[in-house]
Amino acid sequence: MAQIYDKVALIGLGLIASSMFWAIKRGGLAGEVVGTSRSAETRAAAQEVGLCDRIYDNVADTVEGADLVVLCVPVGVMGAVAAELAPYLKAGATVTDVGSVKADVIAQVAPHLPDNVHFVPAHPLAGTEHSGPTSGFAELFDSRWCLIVPAEGSDPEAVGKLRSFWEGLGSFVEEMDAEHHDLVLAVTSHAPHLIAYTMVGVADDLRRVTDTEVIKYSAAGFRDFTRIAASDPTMWRDVFLSNKDATLEILGRFTEELFALQRAIRQGDGEHLHAYFTRTRAIRRSIIEAGQDTDAPNFGRQAGKQP
Amino acid sequence: MAQIYDKVALIGLGLIASSMFWAIKRGGLAGEVVGTSRSAETRAAAQEVGLCDRIYDNVADTVEGADLVVLCVPVGVMGAVAAELAPYLKAGATVTDVGSVKADVIAQVAPHLPDNVHFVPAHPLAGTEHSGPTSGFAELFDSRWCLIVPAEGSDPEAVGKLRSFWEGLGSFVEEMDAEHHDLVLAVTSHAPHLIAYTMVGVADDLRRVTDTEVIKYSAAGFRDFTRIAASDPTMWRDVFLSNKDATLEILGRFTEELFALQRAIRQGDGEHLHAYFTRTRAIRRSIIEAGQDTDAPNFGRQAGKQP
Repeated sequence: MAQIYDKVALIGLGLIASSMFWAIKRGGLAGEVVGTSRSAETRAAAQEVGLCDRIYDNVADTVEGADLVVLCVPVGVMGAVAAELAPYLKAGATVTDVGSVKADVIAQVAPHLPDNVHFVPAHPLAGTEHSGPTSGFAELFDSRWCLIVPAEGSDPEAVGKLRSFWEGLGSFVEEMDAEHHDLVLAVTSHAPHLIAYTMVGVADDLRRVTDTEVIKYSAAGFRDFTRIAASDPTMWRDVFLSNKDATLEILGRFTEELFALQRAIRQGDGEHLHAYFTRTRAIRRSIIEAGQDTDAPNFGRQAGKQP
Repeated sequence: MAQIYDKVALIGLGLIASSMFWAIKRGGLAGEVVGTSRSAETRAAAQEVGLCDRIYDNVADTVEGADLVVLCVPVGVMGAVAAELAPYLKAGATVTDVGSVKADVIAQVAPHLPDNVHFVPAHPLAGTEHSGPTSGFAELFDSRWCLIVPAEGSDPEAVGKLRSFWEGLGSFVEEMDAEHHDLVLAVTSHAPHLIAYTMVGVADDLRRVTDTEVIKYSAAGFRDFTRIAASDPTMWRDVFLSNKDATLEILGRFTEELFALQRAIRQGDGEHLHAYFTRTRAIRRSIIEAGQDTDAPNFGRQAGKQP
């Protein structure tokens, strides 16, 4: 894999940034990779695992001379971080981000960037329930999608380089406009996360069933919800607040469908339920065929140790 | 592992029964294991993979002389199957089941059984999204819980033998009364399944987002819902209809909580969301500590093949 950028600057050092670092090194995609984090604790943890060629305690030094600056901070602070680093950007540099919401991030970031840099928003659809600088690994983006959302009149060459960069990180790349991206993600990610958080909260609130019981017997389905609901709280708070309309629209449809199924249960309408469940089963098959999951039973989980 | 029963009869040959057969053989828990299925197709598929020492096309021959008869059929037909095989049960035999609902199964089955057999309902909390006679494997029950729900005045010796049998299959065993079992399962399994089915259905209905997009980008959270929603439609239809009250109670609480979170999003109440997500994250940790899941990122999934 050929080098694509001379110097890449990672702003924020969480799961995505740390995985990008290891994948950049694996692919030899950049001459130098530097990074920064607001938190001294995070910077220290990153140093310890050998993250980045250099780590700075300020954005000015981090972005100086960088050809690619990647905003890897929670969606809620993208605007503030962009404002802070804008004055130090190299002319002709490309600024991108990895936020899970695009319209809001573009609205936050674009106004702060000088005319002599290229802003090319992106969103890698990859993650785990772990967070922080020590949670990254080079394979995170392999065979996962990265959606590039070029703003109005983005420079085709800058977009093309970023596409090659993400392909070098292991991803399949597609372009999409911001509004459509936010709706697709509301369906495939944002609404499912809120629903998982909710179900886990319900289980925790229930007084007649102890937490111990919920936890011991979670293998029966609840377990998969808890994995989703274990993701970073700050990241997700920001996602819901910044993709408010699409998320609320999907949740509205979800509630409608749920009420219909509840009514079918109450009325003992087995045909309705069976038909519904048969249809959803087919979707699962398509996802496995699309290569976005394994069909090993329980994702090939190993049985747990004795509680 | 010592032999516990001379002859075990499996009624129904799906995921649970086929896994029980392989685990019985692994543990040497029975002298002979026979089975039957109403469907000739299922019996043929079972024969092909070497399932059971003998497979019969009728329940009379299957249960004849059996010390343990295991009802592995959908919850909705437990009563009918019990009525059919009752006349052929050996005196002193133990009849058990693997149904996901207990109060309703007991009400269906108990009236048909003669006084000279022991009825000891049970429920192994294990499964995958696959079904049928070829989907079983010996490790399915390893380190998973099996809940035994002894009816009023069950014979302690019969209960003790069934407990040893399930421990021999690899499970941890606990006793619980039927009503409590049904509530615990409504929380840990039944409600989560209905919610997953619903979200997958919503995604499928949505016109402005294509199925292809939903499937391609499912890695972002939706994927885990589809796994749950891929389970056997007949089994689940019966579960919801036979555990109606507990399921509807939990879904009611779920809807309340979901509305509260939707309101927080609409009102931009980030503190409420962050506090909620932080609490749910802790529950996930407890489940990993309880040994009921792995904390390998993405359950240690391998990246998929190129779509």
